[in-house]
Formats: sequence, structure tokens, C-alpha cells
Amino acid sequence: MAYNVRMFANRTVKEYKVEEGTNLLSFLRKQKADVSAPCGGKGTCGKCRVKVEGIKAEPSEKESKLLGEKWLSRGYRLACCNKIESNLDVYIDDMEGKASIVTQAKEREVKLEPIVAKKYVELAVPDIGDQKSDFERIMDTDSYKSVVSADFLRGLPETLRKSDFKVTCVDIDKKIIAVEAGNTVNVSYGLAVDIGTTTIAAYLIDMNSGKRAGVYSVLNPQRQFGADVISRINYTMESKNGLGELHKSIADCINKIVRYFTSSLGIKRSSIYAVTFAGNTTMMHFLMKVSAKNISVSPFIPVTTRLHKFKASELGIRINPNGFAFVLPGVSAYIGADTVAAVLSSGMYKSEKITLLIDLGTNGEIVLGSSKWMFACSAAAGPAFEGANIRNGMGGVEGAIDKISFSPEIKFSTIGGKKARGICGSGVVDAIAGLISEGIIDETGRLLPEDEAATPREDLKKRITTIDGMTAFVLSGLKKGEADIAITQKDVRELQNAKAAIAAGIRILVSKAGIRMEDIDRVYLAGGFGSYINIDSALRIGLIPIELKEKIEAIGNAAGSGAVEGLISARLLKKTEEIKDRIKYVELSGEPAFMNEYVECMMF
Amino acid sequence: MAYNVRMFANRTVKEYKVEEGTNLLSFLRKQKADVSAPCGGKGTCGKCRVKVEGIKAEPSEKESKLLGEKWLSRGYRLACCNKIESNLDVYIDDMEGKASIVTQAKEREVKLEPIVAKKYVELAVPDIGDQKSDFERIMDTDSYKSVVSADFLRGLPETLRKSDFKVTCVDIDKKIIAVEAGNTVNVSYGLAVDIGTTTIAAYLIDMNSGKRAGVYSVLNPQRQFGADVISRINYTMESKNGLGELHKSIADCINKIVRYFTSSLGIKRSSIYAVTFAGNTTMMHFLMKVSAKNISVSPFIPVTTRLHKFKASELGIRINPNGFAFVLPGVSAYIGADTVAAVLSSGMYKSEKITLLIDLGTNGEIVLGSSKWMFACSAAAGPAFEGANIRNGMGGVEGAIDKISFSPEIKFSTIGGKKARGICGSGVVDAIAGLISEGIIDETGRLLPEDEAATPREDLKKRITTIDGMTAFVLSGLKKGEADIAITQKDVRELQNAKAAIAAGIRILVSKAGIRMEDIDRVYLAGGFGSYINIDSALRIGLIPIELKEKIEAIGNAAGSGAVEGLISARLLKKTEEIKDRIKYVELSGEPAFMNEYVECMMF
Repeated sequence: MAYNVRMFANRTVKEYKVEEGTNLLSFLRKQKADVSAPCGGKGTCGKCRVKVEGIKAEPSEKESKLLGEKWLSRGYRLACCNKIESNLDVYIDDMEGKASIVTQAKEREVKLEPIVAKKYVELAVPDIGDQKSDFERIMDTDSYKSVVSADFLRGLPETLRKSDFKVTCVDIDKKIIAVEAGNTVNVSYGLAVDIGTTTIAAYLIDMNSGKRAGVYSVLNPQRQFGADVISRINYTMESKNGLGELHKSIADCINKIVRYFTSSLGIKRSSIYAVTFAGNTTMMHFLMKVSAKNISVSPFIPVTTRLHKFKASELGIRINPNGFAFVLPGVSAYIGADTVAAVLSSGMYKSEKITLLIDLGTNGEIVLGSSKWMFACSAAAGPAFEGANIRNGMGGVEGAIDKISFSPEIKFSTIGGKKARGICGSGVVDAIAGLISEGIIDETGRLLPEDEAATPREDLKKRITTIDGMTAFVLSGLKKGEADIAITQKDVRELQNAKAAIAAGIRILVSKAGIRMEDIDRVYLAGGFGSYINIDSALRIGLIPIELKEKIEAIGNAAGSGAVEGLISARLLKKTEEIKDRIKYVELSGEPAFMNEYVECMMF
Repeated sequence: MAYNVRMFANRTVKEYKVEEGTNLLSFLRKQKADVSAPCGGKGTCGKCRVKVEGIKAEPSEKESKLLGEKWLSRGYRLACCNKIESNLDVYIDDMEGKASIVTQAKEREVKLEPIVAKKYVELAVPDIGDQKSDFERIMDTDSYKSVVSADFLRGLPETLRKSDFKVTCVDIDKKIIAVEAGNTVNVSYGLAVDIGTTTIAAYLIDMNSGKRAGVYSVLNPQRQFGADVISRINYTMESKNGLGELHKSIADCINKIVRYFTSSLGIKRSSIYAVTFAGNTTMMHFLMKVSAKNISVSPFIPVTTRLHKFKASELGIRINPNGFAFVLPGVSAYIGADTVAAVLSSGMYKSEKITLLIDLGTNGEIVLGSSKWMFACSAAAGPAFEGANIRNGMGGVEGAIDKISFSPEIKFSTIGGKKARGICGSGVVDAIAGLISEGIIDETGRLLPEDEAATPREDLKKRITTIDGMTAFVLSGLKKGEADIAITQKDVRELQNAKAAIAAGIRILVSKAGIRMEDIDRVYLAGGFGSYINIDSALRIGLIPIELKEKIEAIGNAAGSGAVEGLISARLLKKTEEIKDRIKYVELSGEPAFMNEYVECMMF
């Protein structure tokens, strides 16, 4: 028995025949609907809520608890908790493409030595006195030793003859990968991609100028399999072809980005010869379709963290059929290629002064060092900074509260200026910093009930309430028609844990390096969160030591910049291996001092 | 409308439904029936005869002419000339595997430096104090820089963990291609294959000892697309997916050989890590699925003649999934990897004395030289030495007359001691040499009618007759029940052309080198024909200059030996490139003196 399911998404309606008993979340995933399920479909996070008409079953206890009367009454259900047992209409809030993803970054001057090189040659036309083979005719133009694939040879004779032996040779890494008819030297592209757990940023680079020809950002479609790397790894272990699904999800997404660039810029897919990838170690494993299983369990061993060069087709990436993919190296399971790329583009690896680099994504990576030494650690901050595990948390997409000020009165802005739908990481930090300043959160992190709150302000006091048995501070929802958005005691604890992990990580690295906090010359905040966060709020909650106040600079998507640098400079691409080798990884869970620091840093 | 076709082959019967109007040869090719069609199915060679019951159409004029009353009366038809328009029973003379293919060769001592190296290592088991990635753990055991494919990484974590980090690394050409659980150092194989136009010889080599673990020879299944390289190239140009078919045909055949070795020796396919290929330039192109089109037309330009290394899977060859195929280099369109391999294994490239190497296959390749210089040419001898274009000619398979003596009476032997079915190259040479000695063929090559023949022997005279308007000498068929096998005037002309081409080629090379015939220290006859030919007969017909009489040595399948040497010695594999570069190719059609020499050499 099959049912009709109509899916309303992105202003279009599609109709499907679905087998009875199919899990609604599984079905939506298969249709690549924009539904996130941070918990991986376990029915614990409550984020896969969709508006559905036609479900006959009553909401389960789990659904009632996670959705609350408000959402239930508006027709929302949790996709993961329901099976398709009748005809359904499903409404998807499509946020694809509307996310506020940071693709800008501080760029440094890089000498152009692109990994893709093109050269136009006019070869001698063969005759009975010059019987060299086609390939040797090409070889003679350079020191080519061999070809990368039999495929290269398969098109060669026709290309040479249709162009009267006037051709353009395409080299990658000094090896010839293609021969094109005529002079195509002017058309040469490379792609740099930063695969974040939550967001993907891609840069199309003109290899002749080293300049950006296009930029594209999108939410990582893998988030339907879980919000963080651990839930995604769990999915690969629990689902039969889970790794294959995660790999296909990212490869499809990149191919879609390639199609966007080729169609919008009017270039051919075959004119993109190379792609560089940065991202955390798990993302790189999924990209390579390599098991990330051992990354999730102690002692946290990745399959590889080296710089790899593969035929792009081996990774399912559709650029030039003989094009190459470079997977940048990482340091460990939790210091990935994104951190190495950020260290590269920040230039900290060659500065004599000491830099502290903090990349706050779904995890928090911290690197401390200079041209002489570098230490790195990964602080398991959890995804609180990205809005996950927060009652009204959401990613940095339209309708998210991203900035809050408390005086003279509560005021907030939302991304895209849209009606507030939730709160993103920078908003949470602003809210909690404000509540501390106003005396509503004490130094232990307790959200004080109205009668204990130290603030004299009535406008604030009246926002203190109780939600699900916890003290909570209402940001929005006091008036009729406003969405109910609040910070709960649990949210404060989530943030407290997260900031403590980062702050303790910084202290451990400072102590490992044998320096004092004030020896640090500058602090780079990398990543989207680092760009949006209000630095005063970050200092107020103790995320960054107050001593560093004047030295902080947001450098944007430094990982993406590093991936670009690897494309436009073969020397810098190799440099990533050196950086990787030079960074000394500090496993926080193996540091006896860490727990002490962590507990100390819990305080506000 | 479809018909039932029953095919009787190899002691089995198979039944097929075949669409009305299907060409019988096309159908048989599709079923991989052992039917040869040297002309490529054009209805000119008459070799695709099969016994058929059920054909309703009368034999066409072409069929009648090519088959003659004898074969027609026995129910034989030409497959290429008939369509399936009724239910049929087809009987195939299966000769597969019964061919007398030379796989033996003179072997020289080669220092064992195999291209496949295995190494057993016991790695440290990771713990929280040693978090190196799996791949880096492997890298530390050697100077590995990277891996050859993402696939390698995909199996790595499981292999390491199921063997408690005690593994065997497999290297090819100093690059790691596989990691196996436990100690498998003792199990390591390579495959060397010589792909001849007519025959294929394969050697399974134990990479630990360098010794042959198995030998297999088979007729080249591509001969159903044509007997010689030109007809096969024409097939690729005329048929839509012709190149694909030829490639698949050879790849399937090699995979079948691999299966034979693995099942008969009880080893795993994954224990064969590398394969080396020798063969003429066209065969190497078909193997690589690269167009050989320009090889067949002036100025005869191959796509490549370099040494290539590809993943075996890229060529459709199923050994270890990460195993490599090495395609040996050639010199030109008609001096292929087989000749280079033969020069290698003959050792002539490092001898101070002058060697003449003659490889008589479907074409005749001649190399003259020493450690100081080498010249080579290809004499378009045509396939007469392999029995093609000869009235009763056939390959060196069971039932072929391979040796003939004339005194005291005509006597012949057949391959396998079976009833004579035809005559192979060495038999033709013996027959013609004998007829010259007996005065039945004069020095111009005329086969004399009975009244002009200079022989006094009546037993020979009575064998002189007329067939199809030509003088002919009957070898068998005088008695009832004997197959009719004869040498006709046309056969003599075919051989005369062939031997003149070779002899003239030798003279041109001697003159190019500026030496005298007597300066040649030794003559190596390579290839199957070179092993079977009666040297006195070869001298008598003038194939080899009489001055070289005492210096001739048959060295067997020297090309196969060269392919084996490339497996067991990385140094010798590289040496093929040097040999290729050192051989100066002489294009006979570009030599003004060649036609003179050719005409002179026509005389017996």
C-alpha cells in the first residue's frame, strides 16, 4: 500500500507515492528536503519539526514534550517520530541559500604560482620523416614523463588533428592532465571549498589572475544526518550505507555548486581543473568516503590527516574528468584541515610575534604560536555557539536574533531584518553577557528568579519567568503575535560549558608554551561566529581572557582563504604539510590540569 | 520474429533466441564462439566456415567459390555470408587452448628486484598518548609520501584493527598500494602478458622467487575481428563501438587467464599486484582502449609508444583492485613493445658483438645492433608465415602440418599428431624449400607444371595438378578420405613476398649500420614461428642470408621473457625506456634503396 505525499517547499509543490510505514524523516531526507535533525533522528532534539496535515496518530509523549502545545496546535509534528500511514501534505520551511554564511576573509598578498598551469604550443605536424607518437610530440614540449590516466590518451589523437596540432597543455603539479584544441590559456579555473559541519563556502578562482570569479555558500546538507560530527559518525555506524549517504550528500552539494558557477558564469565544467578542500577531519573523511568511526571514540584516531591528491572523479566530484582534488592536511581527529588552512592564511606560522587563533565553529579549535613553535587544541565546546542545544537556538539564517542590547531597553536585530524566529550563537552570547551585567545571572551562572535578581529595572524583571520548571528570561513573546523566544537556565549552562572549554583550552596552551597571557601579540577570531560575535560580550562572558581585549581581530573565513591560497600557490599548498607537522597537538583530555582550569573558567 | 539457434561447441550445446536477420558471424562473435575471420567479415578470406544445419538459402557465388564443393557438401557455410532466417544448429570446431603457442624462451639470469615488494610490520597500537592517524602510522615505516587512491584509505582502518596493527605493506614502484592483515609476505604474484596478434602468452610470476608459478597460452580472441592489425583497426573505424569491443575482448581474455591461475593455483585475485604487457603497438593501443586509427595510415603515427603505468582497473584488468598495469614502450607504429621486450631479454642491447634479432609474427620485426647502436625496421611480410592468405593455411593449432620432408618420399608431421587439417607457417616454408630443391619451383618462384618440372621423381610429379586455374602441388588428398591440402602458385607468391620483405629489411639495416653481413655475430629468431621453422628451409628460401647459417639460434618467446623481466626487475623495467630511445627506427617505405633490395630478394 502506498500513499500520496505532497511536499510544499521553496514555493513549489511536489507529489510522491510513498510506501506505507516509511518514516517521515527518512522520506524527507531522501527528497533532500531542508529539514535538520541534529540528534540524527533519535527523537531527542525536537528540531525536525515540520507542519503536516493528514497524520492520524496522536502525538506521542516524546513529541508533546519536545514540541509543546504551541507548535502542536499549529500543526507541527516531529518528522522522525512519525510514519507515513495516510495521504499527507508536508510544509517545509526552506532556508537553503538564505543562511548568513561568512565567505569574506582578511586576504593577504600571495605570489601567483597556481597549481594549474596552461601553455599553448604549436607542434610539428607529423610526416613520414617525423613519426613520433602523439604523446611524445607533447612530451617534447616539457619534461613530462608520463600521463595520469589512460583516459588522457583516449582523446589525444582527435584533439591534435582537429586543431592542426596547435594545442594548449594543462598541467597540475607539473604533470599534464589535459590537452585542449587551440589556444585556451585564458580560460582556467580552480575551486576552493571549505566544508564546515554546518556551512559550506566555495570560491571559484580564475587561475590566471588568482582572483575570485565567484563565491557561493550553502548550509551543509549533511546536517539532516545530525548537527555535529559525532551524530553524523553515529549515523554512518548505525545505517547500512550511512557513509555512502554522507559522502553522496556532500559530493552532490559540491557538484551543484559547480553547476551554479558554470551556468551563471557561462564556463565549462571541463575548464575547472583542480579543487582544494579544507574542513574538519570528519568532513574530510566523509568527502573521501573514508570511515570516521575511530574519530568518535578514544583514542580518537583518524584514518589520515595528510595532504592528499586524488582524481576528483574518485571523490565523485565532477570537474574536468582528469582534474584533481587536493584534500588539505589536518593535525589530529579534532584539529582539521580547516585549522591548518586558517593558520596558513592568517600568516601566523611565519610571524615572530605570538598569535592566538580561535576558530569557533561547531567545535572550537585554538592555535597558539609563532614562526618558532605552535600548539593547538580542540575544545569540545559543543555546538552551542551555533545555536544547537539552545531552546530557541538556530543557525545564522534569516529570522535569527544575532545582536541584543540591554540599555536603555531590550533591543535586538535579526538576520535579514525578518521577524524573529529564534536566536543564533552571537545573540545567545549578547543575551547572557547582558544578563550578567544586569545582575540577572550570577557569577556561578545561575539565572536568578525575579525576587533574587540584582537588577533594579522592572522592564527586565518582568521578563523573568519559568519555562518547563526552569527559570527563563523572555526575549520575545511578551506581546500577542510575537514568537516565544527565551533564554532558559539550561541555555545558560550550555553556554557556560562551551565558553569554559574554550577559555580553559587557551589557558592550557599558554601554559604549555611557557608564556604569559600578555605575551600574546594578537588574537584572530576565525569562522562565521568569530565574525558576528560582539567582542565586548565575548570578553564579558569570559570566552576570551580580558587581558587580550585590545588585541582581538575577526579574520572571517580564514579556512576558506587557506584553501584558496593552496590553489593559487603550489608553494603554499605544500606549506600546509609543513604547518601540519609543526603544530604540536595537545589532547586536552590527556592534560591533568585541564579539569581544574575548566572548572575555574565556568565562572562568569 | 526470433529463431532458435543451437550452438554445439566444446562438447556442450547452448541454445539461443536470435532476432530474425541477424548476421551469423555477428551472432557467433557475440557468443564468443571460436570462429576466426581474418578478413574481418568481408566475405573474402573464407575462414569463418562453420558446419550449419537448417539454412534455407542456397550458397551464394562467393561462398561456393571460397568453400568449394567439398566443404559445401559436408554442410559447411561461411558465417559472414549468412543471416539467421530459420532455426539453426551450428557446430563449432573449438580449438581454444589447443594451439601450439610458444611460451618457452631462452632465459637469462636476472637479479631479483621485483616491482612488487612486501614488508611485514608490527605497528604501535594507538593510545591517547599516540594519536597518529592510521595512514601516518604506515607512513612511518617507510618514506611513503602519499597513497595512490582514496580506495586504499577506505579499507585501512578495518585491516589495521582486525590484525592488531600487525600488517603487510605492499609497494609497487616504491609507492604503497595495499595493506594486508597479518604477515602475507610469502604470497605475492605478478603477471606478464605477451599479446600477439594471433596468440597470447601469460606468465604468472612468484614475486618472491622470480620463478614462474604458471604459464597459459591462448589464441587472441580479437582474431574474430580480423587476422591482422590492419583489419582490426579497420573494424574499429567501421563499427560504432569497435574499439570498445576489441578492448573488451582482450580484457575479458586476460581476466579469464587470471581466473584460470587463481582457481588452479588456489590463490586470490588480490594477491596479483602488477601486470606487465608486451605486444605490438596496435595491441597495446587496443589494450589501453586508445584509437589505433592513425597507425594504419601514412605517416603511421601511434598515440603513444612510451612506458605507461596505469591502475589495472583503468584497463579493465581485474587483479588486486589497487594493482598496477605497466604497458611496455615501443619504438614506432610497427616496432612495438614486443620487440623492445625481446631486445631486453635477448641481452643484445648490452653486448659488444653485433646481433640480428628477427621476430616473425604476423609482421616481421628486425633489429640489428649492439651496446653501441641499434637499428630496427618492420617488414610488412603479411601474415603468410602464420598461415593466413595461404589456401590451406592455418595457425599453429592441432592438425596443422608443421614439418615436411621430401626424401626419400613426402612425409609430414602435424601438431598434436592429429589428422592433417591444413598447413601452418613452418610447414609452408618446408614445402616450398623442398619444391625448390626438387626443381619444381624455379628461381623466379614459378611453380612448374608437370611437363616442365625438373625433378625426375614420379612420386612428386604426380602431385602436380591444377587448382582454380593455378598450378598446385598436392601434399595430402591423393587418397580417398584424406583432406585436400595443397600448395598453389598463389601460396608461393605470398611466401615469396613475405620472405623478400624480411630479407630486404635485413639488407637495409646492414647497409644503414655500415657493416658487412659477416660482421653479424649471431642471429636470434624470436617468436613462435622462429621456434618451429626449420632453419635449413629458411636459408633455402632465402629468408635469412646464407652467410649467417652457423649463427642462428631460436630464442622462443623473447617478448614474453622481456615482460617477465620487467616484473622481476624494476631496473630492467626502466631499461625498456632506454632501449626504446636507443633504437633508431628505419621506415622502409621511406628508404629509396628498399624497392631494389626487395625485388632482388624475391628470387629463390
